[in-house]
Amino acid sequence: MKAVVIHKELDLRIDERIEEKPGPDQILVKILRGGICGSDLHYYHHGGFGTVRLKEPMILGHEVAGEIVSTGPNVTNVKIGDRIALNPSRPCNHCEYCQRGLQNQCLDMRFYGSAMRFPHVQGAFRQMMVADATQAHIIDQGIGIEEAAFAEPFAVTLHAINRAGPLLNKRVLVTGCGPIGALAIMAARVHGAREIIVTDISDFTLGLAKKVGADHTVNVATNAEAMARFKAGKGQIDVMFEASGNEAALQLGLEVLRPRGTLVQLGLGSSLNVPQNVIVGKEIEILGSFRFHEEFALAVDLINHRRVNLKPLLTEIVTLDDAKRGFDLASDRSKAMKVQIAFA
Amino acid sequence: MKAVVIHKELDLRIDERIEEKPGPDQILVKILRGGICGSDLHYYHHGGFGTVRLKEPMILGHEVAGEIVSTGPNVTNVKIGDRIALNPSRPCNHCEYCQRGLQNQCLDMRFYGSAMRFPHVQGAFRQMMVADATQAHIIDQGIGIEEAAFAEPFAVTLHAINRAGPLLNKRVLVTGCGPIGALAIMAARVHGAREIIVTDISDFTLGLAKKVGADHTVNVATNAEAMARFKAGKGQIDVMFEASGNEAALQLGLEVLRPRGTLVQLGLGSSLNVPQNVIVGKEIEILGSFRFHEEFALAVDLINHRRVNLKPLLTEIVTLDDAKRGFDLASDRSKAMKVQIAFA
Amino acid sequence: MKAVVIHKELDLRIDERIEEKPGPDQILVKILRGGICGSDLHYYHHGGFGTVRLKEPMILGHEVAGEIVSTGPNVTNVKIGDRIALNPSRPCNHCEYCQRGLQNQCLDMRFYGSAMRFPHVQGAFRQMMVADATQAHIIDQGIGIEEAAFAEPFAVTLHAINRAGPLLNKRVLVTGCGPIGALAIMAARVHGAREIIVTDISDFTLGLAKKVGADHTVNVATNAEAMARFKAGKGQIDVMFEASGNEAALQLGLEVLRPRGTLVQLGLGSSLNVPQNVIVGKEIEILGSFRFHEEFALAVDLINHRRVNLKPLLTEIVTLDDAKRGFDLASDRSKAMKVQIAFA
Amino acid sequence: MKAVVIHKELDLRIDERIEEKPGPDQILVKILRGGICGSDLHYYHHGGFGTVRLKEPMILGHEVAGEIVSTGPNVTNVKIGDRIALNPSRPCNHCEYCQRGLQNQCLDMRFYGSAMRFPHVQGAFRQMMVADATQAHIIDQGIGIEEAAFAEPFAVTLHAINRAGPLLNKRVLVTGCGPIGALAIMAARVHGAREIIVTDISDFTLGLAKKVGADHTVNVATNAEAMARFKAGKGQIDVMFEASGNEAALQLGLEVLRPRGTLVQLGLGSSLNVPQNVIVGKEIEILGSFRFHEEFALAVDLINHRRVNLKPLLTEIVTLDDAKRGFDLASDRSKAMKVQIAFA
Repeated sequence: MKAVVIHKELDLRIDERIEEKPGPDQILVKILRGGICGSDLHYYHHGGFGTVRLKEPMILGHEVAGEIVSTGPNVTNVKIGDRIALNPSRPCNHCEYCQRGLQNQCLDMRFYGSAMRFPHVQGAFRQMMVADATQAHIIDQGIGIEEAAFAEPFAVTLHAINRAGPLLNKRVLVTGCGPIGALAIMAARVHGAREIIVTDISDFTLGLAKKVGADHTVNVATNAEAMARFKAGKGQIDVMFEASGNEAALQLGLEVLRPRGTLVQLGLGSSLNVPQNVIVGKEIEILGSFRFHEEFALAVDLINHRRVNLKPLLTEIVTLDDAKRGFDLASDRSKAMKVQIAFA
Repeated sequence: MKAVVIHKELDLRIDERIEEKPGPDQILVKILRGGICGSDLHYYHHGGFGTVRLKEPMILGHEVAGEIVSTGPNVTNVKIGDRIALNPSRPCNHCEYCQRGLQNQCLDMRFYGSAMRFPHVQGAFRQMMVADATQAHIIDQGIGIEEAAFAEPFAVTLHAINRAGPLLNKRVLVTGCGPIGALAIMAARVHGAREIIVTDISDFTLGLAKKVGADHTVNVATNAEAMARFKAGKGQIDVMFEASGNEAALQLGLEVLRPRGTLVQLGLGSSLNVPQNVIVGKEIEILGSFRFHEEFALAVDLINHRRVNLKPLLTEIVTLDDAKRGFDLASDRSKAMKVQIAFA
Repeated sequence: MKAVVIHKELDLRIDERIEEKPGPDQILVKILRGGICGSDLHYYHHGGFGTVRLKEPMILGHEVAGEIVSTGPNVTNVKIGDRIALNPSRPCNHCEYCQRGLQNQCLDMRFYGSAMRFPHVQGAFRQMMVADATQAHIIDQGIGIEEAAFAEPFAVTLHAINRAGPLLNKRVLVTGCGPIGALAIMAARVHGAREIIVTDISDFTLGLAKKVGADHTVNVATNAEAMARFKAGKGQIDVMFEASGNEAALQLGLEVLRPRGTLVQLGLGSSLNVPQNVIVGKEIEILGSFRFHEEFALAVDLINHRRVNLKPLLTEIVTLDDAKRGFDLASDRSKAMKVQIAFA
Repeated sequence: MKAVVIHKELDLRIDERIEEKPGPDQILVKILRGGICGSDLHYYHHGGFGTVRLKEPMILGHEVAGEIVSTGPNVTNVKIGDRIALNPSRPCNHCEYCQRGLQNQCLDMRFYGSAMRFPHVQGAFRQMMVADATQAHIIDQGIGIEEAAFAEPFAVTLHAINRAGPLLNKRVLVTGCGPIGALAIMAARVHGAREIIVTDISDFTLGLAKKVGADHTVNVATNAEAMARFKAGKGQIDVMFEASGNEAALQLGLEVLRPRGTLVQLGLGSSLNVPQNVIVGKEIEILGSFRFHEEFALAVDLINHRRVNLKPLLTEIVTLDDAKRGFDLASDRSKAMKVQIAFA
């Protein structure tokens, strides 16, 4: 079995690995498609992020979909032949956070393709994968496998919407329109945002933003003054999703947010300089948003019911042997939104 | 009539001003006592803070109490002779924020002794003051005028408690134990905080923290390692009130806050370096808290019913002529908590 | 000018009334279309509801749209020729509830066509109407006037959604599929409800429910057992909108609601027998929902942006002279959803 | 070992039972004191309540405290000799509600002395009891065992406070001042209620209400007109705790609650007639409150820190042999608040 393994920064290889066998409550999945995520790119370019660093070779990948090829004897929720999206999140279900319904904050989380713990949790960019049956979410007939592979990043943005609270009658700003920003647009739209404004510095991504539901887009590199009208009064934005990790984006957001506005921070950025006096004076609410829990099933449900159309976000599908080129392409924000790897 | 006027940084004078006359819905108040606040000290030492700068001489002061000496013909809620705490906050009641119940975010706020607008709103450190009758809150018999003069800063901390949400079963951290931090301890205690930990770098203020309800105090300058136990798991603090404006305090707070913990930011600090990855990873909620609205009446009610004892926080009462010494004393955190000026 | 006037129960007349003139901040509106509401029908059939009884003749109607024919000198938000939906709600903006942002609970509310106060507030089923300019909300080119006349009842259901809190990942039950129930389906769908189940006793209305977004419909008169699956565990419904005022519907709802589920009560029913032990044992949340405030503008915005298609709910348009037949038709739930009167 | 066993209504016996042995994670507790609860009285007088009926003899009791006499080998949180309050609630920790942090809604709950499931869960009115070590909460030196036996009903009221949301600046009404109502007064007071009004029909219990923190008490049997002032405007009460199960109390509450006020329903009453038009018109929030989860530990903590003084609520301690007289005394609301049984 082949797998996409990061050895150290910029050292990405297609390695041979031994296939595992499913236990009684497990399934064996033939992975068909995997999306390259921003954190995969961080391992690829920088060998990690923040204090999370690669200490051993690790299979990357956690945005995957495939087909079930065998099931353990206790499995009842899925069967051989089912096409599924695979939830890469495996909380312990016993720690104090799991017992409070905060499984995404599990003290003993094992998340595919993450170097947060050691030994690292190996990822899902591989041809065959054993998983717990509860991780599998069936994709309806007629739904493409490429859509299924969007379930994970879409779940991340649905969690951010969940954190933000109701969007009824809200004017929403999304700063940073990579895959997470773009999916946040769709997640906000389907949950009732009244108006959605999107900023980025790439016309390519802003063009896609329009296609997937943005009401207004602003290239802040070339047309920053277009944001001026949202500074009127003490600010005109109700809820902001910060998906750029950029200090200037955060600071602009604090200027355009209304008093008592909400800023949901997505993405694991570094330390940023934040004007506390604005947060205090306008009584801004800042909310971190990390991964997802119940939102994975919701993502699959919304895809199955065609309440969102994720296809415009797919830039290219590369073969497994061509994975490295896929990583390079995914790193170019002027040309690529989501790049997927075909494992079969 | 004499008034305490700041002309420019470090230039504090006792000036003569002409007495005003109350309109039909107004009262004339003989100011008896005024507490020196951190923002008064900012004008005194630095001529302002952030973008708020002195542009003309301004009477300081907004923490005052006094006695009503005359009332306009329409006034019914108070009468001559009533001793009152005076709410320094005058929202317009018509703007979109007032109409949403967010009067502290009024677009046309006039707040005593503030250089946020020009001409500046003159303050209340004066011997006689005309005010709207609705600003007056009667102090019960037997309550000292020095307690009444605490109503305003106490209201600031009650608003912070209000922002934080319920404290039932919560472990609370207060970072920075100046007057606002100390009052936050009392406000948290009376609203059900289960356990209160307080940090500062002054043993003097930490000693007072103990007196007014802190369960544990930690001098982070001399005994930082005492905070280690609150870092266990992913953090052990549920709610934090940041009243220091200090970057190290904020960063420590992010380390000891639990996943989904709440950090209420008080005080108009400058820009601080904030580790976004911690906010995201632990899904921290940061809430700005600015001034107060309904909490002023609550502060007076709690004082009247003796549910709090504010007296331990009063360091010294200086005479009007000695106001400058009062400002200098109030600036020394190793010796002073709250300093009040006696205007009569 | 002609108007639709209720004199006493079943005594509905087309009376002549004198045209008014707009004041400086007012507009004169040529009413084009008006929808007959359940409360109009209550006045028509029963002379009122609960303690609200007709004491003098009253023009009915509050779901109206029209065209501006003249404006007072201070009016800037609209101009002659604009087609508008007219907000029938006029809060005082000064009472304690208005000052808290709860204008729909105004202590001095004047709401069109309501006998709650005396003299009654005359309604909008008339050919010409003077209104405050702030009540007017412009309808976009290409939007039919019949859609505009839905803004008011749609706002009622948007307020109910607002009360319910976020619908992300929620299974929703709507009991009673008259116009309010049907609009609640659309309001819930556009705000992210994951799955919507609708019950009624009329196959006609349930057929329309399917058309406007219900996932499942159940005729509880003929197929009550279809609800059994939602009783599994302790109940499978997250949020319920009770729009029938029927005791059996409420009791069924309490059976199928999950622990900690939410029941939003719409419509001014009479006293009902409620099993307290179920409310306690499952810790149900019941929320009353009354009229709307900010949701009127939202309703118009959603109509203007074609995020909802209200047309399937329009059963028939009757002429002003034929208004009585319109009231009779609107009373027949086996044939009619919404009936509108054409005033010009 | 002796135990207090209900065989059928009014048939209460002191039976012999065999002592059990603790497992590896368990403890053996010598029960010292047990409080008689309203549900114990329901089994005694009526053989159950609602659909919950006795089908076999059942040991009563769930408000108990005692001393640990032996521990299993894995137990680390307590040791022999510790005096403890015993949490009678044993959720499964695996069902969907436990996994969401709603352990009090566990689908497989085993709660001491409850006939909700069959075989019934035997209760704690016995001399020796095996329990999971995690059920034990240590009582501090100097705290009386009679206070420890209040932890359970106090937790019930703390959960109700938790359900109600923040009480800051709130005027609270408690209707029905039996043990739960009285404890709700203390729980509300310690969590910041601004003003507490209590109604009942017994002067004895209202006298105790005053002792434990009520600001005003009203005997609605003899002085109902005293409630008139709380009906002013649309009502003057912010939050109501309904602890009587009485229809008249509920209806009065709906009259005095403010628009958007909250009514927390405690106690498993029967079906009541509820005026839906008031709930809708004033947009009342009704919240069921059932048992507790995290609040048990909080109850013990508040008792240990002497933030409440529960002793005034203890009417009499009866011996085990005299248990039947205890039950009769506890049933007399004109003389008894809480009656406890001494098991050793």
